[in-house]
Amino acid sequence: MGRLVIVLTVVLAITSANGCGSRANVDLAKEEAAIRKTDADWLAASTAHDLERVLPFWADDATILSPGTPPIVGKQAIRQYVAGAFATPGFSISWKTEKIELSNSGDMAYSTGTDRVSFTTPDGKSMTQENRAVAVWKKQPDGSWKCVMDVMNAAGPANAK
Amino acid sequence: MGRLVIVLTVVLAITSANGCGSRANVDLAKEEAAIRKTDADWLAASTAHDLERVLPFWADDATILSPGTPPIVGKQAIRQYVAGAFATPGFSISWKTEKIELSNSGDMAYSTGTDRVSFTTPDGKSMTQENRAVAVWKKQPDGSWKCVMDVMNAAGPANAK
Repeated sequence: MGRLVIVLTVVLAITSANGCGSRANVDLAKEEAAIRKTDADWLAASTAHDLERVLPFWADDATILSPGTPPIVGKQAIRQYVAGAFATPGFSISWKTEKIELSNSGDMAYSTGTDRVSFTTPDGKSMTQENRAVAVWKKQPDGSWKCVMDVMNAAGPANAK
Repeated sequence: MGRLVIVLTVVLAITSANGCGSRANVDLAKEEAAIRKTDADWLAASTAHDLERVLPFWADDATILSPGTPPIVGKQAIRQYVAGAFATPGFSISWKTEKIELSNSGDMAYSTGTDRVSFTTPDGKSMTQENRAVAVWKKQPDGSWKCVMDVMNAAGPANAK
């Protein structure tokens, strides 16, 4: 029986190290750190107003739900939307991401946070809008995390600075 | 070797039928149907303005992000918020849920849709607000699905009916 026990032990070790075993042992802390790093890179690209660096952080079929505008669906619509924002006089954006919660499989997550968007009105007034934001993230086949749903609403009326 | 092959086959069959095997075979279509059923029950309770039936659809630590109000965090704050809405003259709510996307593990999902909230202003005008909404759902230890994040924004200005 000795040899059989060794064989069984090896088989069990192999099956638990493979496929479903690794799924059960997803390192969620590592995935959360990966999302926070991605989000920080996204923020840096956004504050730099670098359209080509910003766009890949949304999945190709992502949706932005921005107050008062029709849903912005897909990469081409997002490109137009972001290019328009970057071209707005006095535009700036910053955000702080707070909570990130992951699914057990480590392939979906959502994050919450706040953002601040500033712009200059046609009559030269500098306005700032504070928003609350929720992003839904999906892990891509290449292991990167991308935003699939990007929704925000106003904390209150926009304020003149 | 014949007996060893049989033993190994049995071991592999047992390990793949257990634990991680069932996780790999989550029936996502069944989970999506469960969320749609839950959402329909939630809508029915909401249109009936039945506070005690409505509240359990949010998780105890759920957050509602409603435009222009501070985040509504936790069951007690949600109770006050919903009770206030139901007490608003002319209040009604309805919604349509569109897409539901699940994590591979079938324990997290998000849904998108639109809602319509009507109310009567103090000077007797009936107003209707159209919103876009995103809900994040988490499967609970008892197998039920609850909303953990409920965020919406306005499709445009509120309209007088």
